[in-house]
Amino acid sequence: MTHTLNPADARFAETLRAALPDGTVSDASASYLEEPRGVYRGKAAVLAKPRSTQEVATLIRMAAEARVGVIPYGGGTGLVGAQVDPDGPPPLILSLERMTAIRAIYPDENVLVVEAGAILEDVQRAAEEADRLFPLSLAAQGSARIGGNLGTNAGGTGVLRYGNTRDLCLGLEAVLPDGQILNGLTRLRKNNTGYDLRHLLIGAEGTLGVITAATLKLFARPAQTGTALLVVDSPSAAIKLLSMARKHFGEMVSAFELIHRQGYDFLTETMPEIRQPFALAPEWSVLIELGLAADMDPQVGLAALFEEAAEAGLVHDGLIAQSSAQSADFWNIRESIPEGNRRVGSICSHDISVPLSAIPEFIEKAGAQIALIGDFRINCFGHVGDGNLHYNVFPHIGHSRDEYADQREALKNCVHDLTDALGGSISAEHGIGRMKVADLEKYGDPAKLSAMRAIKAALDPLGIMNPGAVLRR
Amino acid sequence: MTHTLNPADARFAETLRAALPDGTVSDASASYLEEPRGVYRGKAAVLAKPRSTQEVATLIRMAAEARVGVIPYGGGTGLVGAQVDPDGPPPLILSLERMTAIRAIYPDENVLVVEAGAILEDVQRAAEEADRLFPLSLAAQGSARIGGNLGTNAGGTGVLRYGNTRDLCLGLEAVLPDGQILNGLTRLRKNNTGYDLRHLLIGAEGTLGVITAATLKLFARPAQTGTALLVVDSPSAAIKLLSMARKHFGEMVSAFELIHRQGYDFLTETMPEIRQPFALAPEWSVLIELGLAADMDPQVGLAALFEEAAEAGLVHDGLIAQSSAQSADFWNIRESIPEGNRRVGSICSHDISVPLSAIPEFIEKAGAQIALIGDFRINCFGHVGDGNLHYNVFPHIGHSRDEYADQREALKNCVHDLTDALGGSISAEHGIGRMKVADLEKYGDPAKLSAMRAIKAALDPLGIMNPGAVLRR
Repeated sequence: MTHTLNPADARFAETLRAALPDGTVSDASASYLEEPRGVYRGKAAVLAKPRSTQEVATLIRMAAEARVGVIPYGGGTGLVGAQVDPDGPPPLILSLERMTAIRAIYPDENVLVVEAGAILEDVQRAAEEADRLFPLSLAAQGSARIGGNLGTNAGGTGVLRYGNTRDLCLGLEAVLPDGQILNGLTRLRKNNTGYDLRHLLIGAEGTLGVITAATLKLFARPAQTGTALLVVDSPSAAIKLLSMARKHFGEMVSAFELIHRQGYDFLTETMPEIRQPFALAPEWSVLIELGLAADMDPQVGLAALFEEAAEAGLVHDGLIAQSSAQSADFWNIRESIPEGNRRVGSICSHDISVPLSAIPEFIEKAGAQIALIGDFRINCFGHVGDGNLHYNVFPHIGHSRDEYADQREALKNCVHDLTDALGGSISAEHGIGRMKVADLEKYGDPAKLSAMRAIKAALDPLGIMNPGAVLRR
Repeated sequence: MTHTLNPADARFAETLRAALPDGTVSDASASYLEEPRGVYRGKAAVLAKPRSTQEVATLIRMAAEARVGVIPYGGGTGLVGAQVDPDGPPPLILSLERMTAIRAIYPDENVLVVEAGAILEDVQRAAEEADRLFPLSLAAQGSARIGGNLGTNAGGTGVLRYGNTRDLCLGLEAVLPDGQILNGLTRLRKNNTGYDLRHLLIGAEGTLGVITAATLKLFARPAQTGTALLVVDSPSAAIKLLSMARKHFGEMVSAFELIHRQGYDFLTETMPEIRQPFALAPEWSVLIELGLAADMDPQVGLAALFEEAAEAGLVHDGLIAQSSAQSADFWNIRESIPEGNRRVGSICSHDISVPLSAIPEFIEKAGAQIALIGDFRINCFGHVGDGNLHYNVFPHIGHSRDEYADQREALKNCVHDLTDALGGSISAEHGIGRMKVADLEKYGDPAKLSAMRAIKAALDPLGIMNPGAVLRR
């Protein structure tokens, strides 16, 4: 599907200025043309910062009339380049940053209504002030905006218990590519009245419309927490331990993170100031976090879990945090691993997921196949409870990542081919953006791709919405 | 959008027979042309019972070539007439009843893969045999098929804790209206690779394709249960009690059902053999069910909840089941209420939902407005934790429902208008089918309807899939 789009030029900007309040339209400053990985760079573009859904609708209608591409812009923190167009004619960047209101909060309903431009951390705080939890939690939460989290169906550390962003959304308000406003801010838990457009817009990365507001689910805040760092015999034992933990604590297992010895070793190598609990770093360990209701005792429960798991031969050592300071120490290790990785410098990194029971096979085969390519260090860690691994490949000590630039493609193909063969996903939580369009074409189901193209053509016949993202322009 | 479809006549049946194994194609017997409410009756039709997804694809391709309408058929238990076409040319009824295999079960992943024709109760049993829970639970589970549950996004009694059917599905296999097979049977918890077609097909009631298999989520089976029947001061107190219960038990509140005095009175009137726990039926009461992990004590927890709620003035009487027999007695009351209703004979019934905090206002206003229409008895009960009320209107003692036939429309409009005004849904769990097409047009968001029509036209340009359901033909 090829669409001839026009550039967002000075004349187009003038037309917009005439229709919108002063200060809404300007030239886009450099920060709107960059993305965190530094892979893509946008061309000079027109920036609009609407204050209301009506203004968003006006902008979309005018872009449609002028056949100008529109990039919905949240916090700009995405990792696959959905927020920057380096290829097409200069687009209209539509930033939601002025639409940040918490429109309403209903604690007894566990519901919050928020505009798309609100920063994730502000949404978390608003929930907390109402003695509730909004469980979406990720590294960029201080600058990521909820509209972007919805557009990309963001993951993060709360998925095991609370689901992905789409699972936290009851309803959406959005502007469709023809400028119509979709009024779908329902607070209902049950509503079977026609096709679920909410889930179609979530994860569409701005290619089917602009999300302007959302109704979000809140939860009771856990009354108490418990943390344990347990040494497991293997990734397979880790998966069985998760099953066992769920027997003890039901849905209240909040996190279940796998750590490999390489992670501890990188910390020793690059951040020796970090306190490590084990004299000898274990080959495989898991960090378990519980968020319990008032009527449970985390210490007693974790001790019982350890005992049962030890008897079953799944764990052979471990620590149960005896204080919040010790719990923070455990988490500090897990949260410092990405920084340790950065200091060592990976050759390539992958955001993959596989079915839970395929994790042992994935880890074994990926290691063996990469060893055939060359001699590398591998740090494999992450949200193992979700089947989501960060699988990062590093040079040996004394070598630099730059020496391996010509092996990067082979390494990526090795990891992605194996992921695909095991029924996995080559983008577990980051999305497709512009970076993985070719991967989606390579690994995606043909019927799915053809239906996606038909839907895109039906809802956005002019092809103005985030051109080139997700689907080839 | 009007499509000229051809009848599934003898010649069409012959063409199908030539392409498919013996015994696949026959005339549809009467049971395939009826539906439980007796409102719609289908015309003589051709019936196909494919044994594989490939055969489903062949049938759909041939129907598309011949421009014959196709009705995907599950257990035939739907309550809004999606499974019967009384208006168009005789269709091809595509029954999934021979595709009933549990293809695989992965207890450590909490995943089960099943063909669409499997009966819900068989899916529950397969999970149980693997020491897991598949929590979808509804009255028709002995004959409803999982494909129909997915097609209609069925609700039931497990929604409060586990979500609607869509929340229980990780992936789908389906045949699209052009005969392409969508291979989406992923077992992944995280997968951000393009538009979510799964959620588009779920709840589309067979109008966008035929679901042939699904990957479903399983859960740990609760280690122990607790049941209480508490007398609350008002519907508003019930909502606050639910918040309080979640503080005590987190996500482990499995059911929270509202019962009105009218329900008890109807049981006294029509089923005096049912043991009632209260000497004097309370105006409002709630049935609470807990499904706890191993490390909690339901008796202690419910007692603590009662004490706290009594102090806060929310409850003033109540019973905590001391045995499984007593728990069964409490549930027997709740589960007999629909039968009591049937014996009294309602003038009209409604499957509505409103935001949780609007429930008190809904109940008050609906009662007042209905009193202006006439003198009726109202039994309002149901899944109050989901905001889903069964709101049924009855004649006074000594009168029959037939005397009020001419007031039915006014009563329905009164309930639906109020529901809509409070941000509610006129179909909480049953869907649109053919019965509520006009209601969807009346109460639905115009932008949503126009996007739905565009998607339907894009994926099913010939209009062969379940013509006349959800959207007008």
